[in-house]
Amino acid sequence: MSKDKPQRPKARLPRGFRDRSGAELAAERAMLETIRRVYEGYGFEPLETPAFEYTDALGKFLPDVDRPNAGVFSLKDDDEQWMSLRYDLTAPLARHVAANFQNLAKPFRRYASGSVWRNEKPGPGRFREFTQFDADTVGSANPAADAELLMMLSDTLEALGLKRGDYIVKINNRKLLDGVLEASGIALDDRVRRGIVLRAIDKLDRLGVEGVSALLGEGRKDDSGDFTKGAGLNPEQAHRILAFVAPDAKDEEEHLNQIAHLISTSATGAAGLTELEAIVKILNACDYGPDRIQFDTGVVRGLDYYTGAVFEAQLTFPVTNEDGEEVVFGSVAGGGRYDDLVARFTGQQVPATGISIGVSRLLSALSARGLNAAAQKPLIVVTVFDKSQSAAAFQMVGELRSAGLRAEAYVGNGKMGDQFKYADKRGAAIAVVEGPDERAKGEVTLKDLALGAELAKSVESRAEWTATRQAQVSVRRADLVAEIKKLLGG
Amino acid sequence: MSKDKPQRPKARLPRGFRDRSGAELAAERAMLETIRRVYEGYGFEPLETPAFEYTDALGKFLPDVDRPNAGVFSLKDDDEQWMSLRYDLTAPLARHVAANFQNLAKPFRRYASGSVWRNEKPGPGRFREFTQFDADTVGSANPAADAELLMMLSDTLEALGLKRGDYIVKINNRKLLDGVLEASGIALDDRVRRGIVLRAIDKLDRLGVEGVSALLGEGRKDDSGDFTKGAGLNPEQAHRILAFVAPDAKDEEEHLNQIAHLISTSATGAAGLTELEAIVKILNACDYGPDRIQFDTGVVRGLDYYTGAVFEAQLTFPVTNEDGEEVVFGSVAGGGRYDDLVARFTGQQVPATGISIGVSRLLSALSARGLNAAAQKPLIVVTVFDKSQSAAAFQMVGELRSAGLRAEAYVGNGKMGDQFKYADKRGAAIAVVEGPDERAKGEVTLKDLALGAELAKSVESRAEWTATRQAQVSVRRADLVAEIKKLLGG
Repeated sequence: MSKDKPQRPKARLPRGFRDRSGAELAAERAMLETIRRVYEGYGFEPLETPAFEYTDALGKFLPDVDRPNAGVFSLKDDDEQWMSLRYDLTAPLARHVAANFQNLAKPFRRYASGSVWRNEKPGPGRFREFTQFDADTVGSANPAADAELLMMLSDTLEALGLKRGDYIVKINNRKLLDGVLEASGIALDDRVRRGIVLRAIDKLDRLGVEGVSALLGEGRKDDSGDFTKGAGLNPEQAHRILAFVAPDAKDEEEHLNQIAHLISTSATGAAGLTELEAIVKILNACDYGPDRIQFDTGVVRGLDYYTGAVFEAQLTFPVTNEDGEEVVFGSVAGGGRYDDLVARFTGQQVPATGISIGVSRLLSALSARGLNAAAQKPLIVVTVFDKSQSAAAFQMVGELRSAGLRAEAYVGNGKMGDQFKYADKRGAAIAVVEGPDERAKGEVTLKDLALGAELAKSVESRAEWTATRQAQVSVRRADLVAEIKKLLGG
Repeated sequence: MSKDKPQRPKARLPRGFRDRSGAELAAERAMLETIRRVYEGYGFEPLETPAFEYTDALGKFLPDVDRPNAGVFSLKDDDEQWMSLRYDLTAPLARHVAANFQNLAKPFRRYASGSVWRNEKPGPGRFREFTQFDADTVGSANPAADAELLMMLSDTLEALGLKRGDYIVKINNRKLLDGVLEASGIALDDRVRRGIVLRAIDKLDRLGVEGVSALLGEGRKDDSGDFTKGAGLNPEQAHRILAFVAPDAKDEEEHLNQIAHLISTSATGAAGLTELEAIVKILNACDYGPDRIQFDTGVVRGLDYYTGAVFEAQLTFPVTNEDGEEVVFGSVAGGGRYDDLVARFTGQQVPATGISIGVSRLLSALSARGLNAAAQKPLIVVTVFDKSQSAAAFQMVGELRSAGLRAEAYVGNGKMGDQFKYADKRGAAIAVVEGPDERAKGEVTLKDLALGAELAKSVESRAEWTATRQAQVSVRRADLVAEIKKLLGG
């Protein structure tokens, strides 16, 4: 359109972004609606914050330690202040609470869903814009707040059609691990070393005890020869930590006894145990037993800001990955207690706890389980034999819609053959035809496209005409709605 | 949290962005859901594109001619290419269609809703992130495609509760104006002059015939003394244009005759008339007469990319503006035909037409009309007399939720007084109390908070105790759900 730019732009998306349409979107919308219904039923209130925050208000809590300044999309505003696109929904919540603290009913319980952006290297299934669905309770140190989130997460997964045994919500407490570290003589304010220990434990599933042991000690060389520096713990310290995260206890009671022994006299560890027990007591009383929510010392979560309880929902059924291997689906949601995030702004500690669902991962999981049935109604396409008869087609679709059906009149310029191809491509259930012959007789022809496609498959091509005839029926124009309802009902 | 940054960040949002919560979000969600339902009923398919596009793919179509390079938020990707946040949903649609042309069923009819971003100076009610809801038909030059969008827009406004007379959808065609320009001897490829003429006409409501006349001629000095350069037309040319946009005809027929005279022998103008008549013919046949959709030569729309039909939905009822003045609400949706946008990428012209709803403006309008009733269910807060009894409260809310009610257990650390204050602040309908006395008797107490607040207003403070008693009732624990349903039903 512009004369001074003869070169045309390419129609492509930046790396790591994607378009989505049709059935996938419909399934996601249905899923989000179910989550929302459960969260509203629990009395959580919606909150929406904008895409942008001031960069300093967002803080830097992404787990990618190699590029602590990267990971977010940032730009300078007109007034020379740096703004960033949110990388999660928790940092904006902390900012919102700090800014509105006096006016909020506390505990402040809110849910939020929306896009977050990560300026990271995209990969298969790894996008730079994706959706999270969060629920958080701010302003309560009461373990009942954690228990509530765990029950709500369990209810949500079941409301989406997952059965007990399809999923497990795991719970742990960072203070327990801190207790073990403290009892082992490792200073808790050595945040770098503590971070290496956390990330090593987080890899237990992937690297096994031996790999984690190496990362707790001097370090580990991976298959490609790359060396990852370890936490530098001595063998006895590493052993205590491994005894904590990969216990050999025969039951939960023995495990808890072992933990009590490992945390020894650490006050932090003891506080963690008390919090955990308070949560588990509520869960058991409300029938959310270990078949739904269970204690697991191996769950630590990557994010740096958790201060107490940590949660992770895992799907336990096998799926086939991109390499054709059967793997367990794994984590679809996580969260925990973060008592310091609001204090970043106000200096005043505000206890908080939350869960976050990875929307596209959960949607893939439901799809793998056949639980993503989208609720799109069957489509009826009313063809237009002659463009001068457009209005008649619109009148028909108007009647069909008034009867609650989903119907469109063809608005292109194609001939009848093009229109039937269009209806097929759209996945329409029925095409309606009102040619001059039909109009003269006060009739319309209904073509059952699904049946037609089925018949066309099973007959010889010379019999196609018959097949087509079998899949269509002429009815009185006045009976249009009733006859279509009959066809759809069959 | 970070040792090397002793200064705390301020808890504030960048200029022009805002948080939204509670009732406003619930009302918006209900509104979006209604729009979506109508659009899906018409057979439009959802499409979601990401926030980012390559800057060159977005193009520059914002009406702000003074800063043609500004208006969008842009940043450089790792690979040194410029990306921008979308400023509308049409430019990403054109990119999507150009990239997927072969695979799409055409006409391609999609709807989309989501945030768009404008890097503009914020003002009252003018934000830098806002929501649009678009529907477009790509790949059809048939006026039936335009007529369909107009009827769908009308249906949508009525589905939202607006009555005929509350709104009017206006329709015009850029080609008519081009015909008048051509017949007046003004070259159509003089895009700068044509742009000045369009924007002058767009101000007819605000400046009147005299102001527009000045802008069509040498220019106009506004009240502040600022001079806006005009289109430089001679008086006869300006007169023809004014006769077109501000006709003195006694009815539509006379107006159309005047227009036919004004466009004289212009082929472009004649094409515009033919398109307009085809649309109006369908609208009238389907009973979308001038009380719902009407021809108005004064509607031109600001965006530069329209090539034919243009639409605008206006709300006609008066509202009170920020200065306390009664004004007509005005435009809530607009659109038109843009046959060149896909050709930017492919070189091949693809006819397209669309409508876009300004979501927050329409929501304000519904609110002004009392039509934004959010569908949030009444809330029940179950208090916790003693924290060791949290589980009992969770059991109660579990029962209430199973009965379809919205209920929460108090998860904070406050005493009973704090809990009642919390329930009030949350706008809860009922608070449930199960203290030791109640528990011993197998009872619970239900406090009707709405009634309590009502009674507290009307009684002397010394009678408060009685008022409180009137607004509460003790019931058997086993009858909890039934008794609460009875209270809510009353």
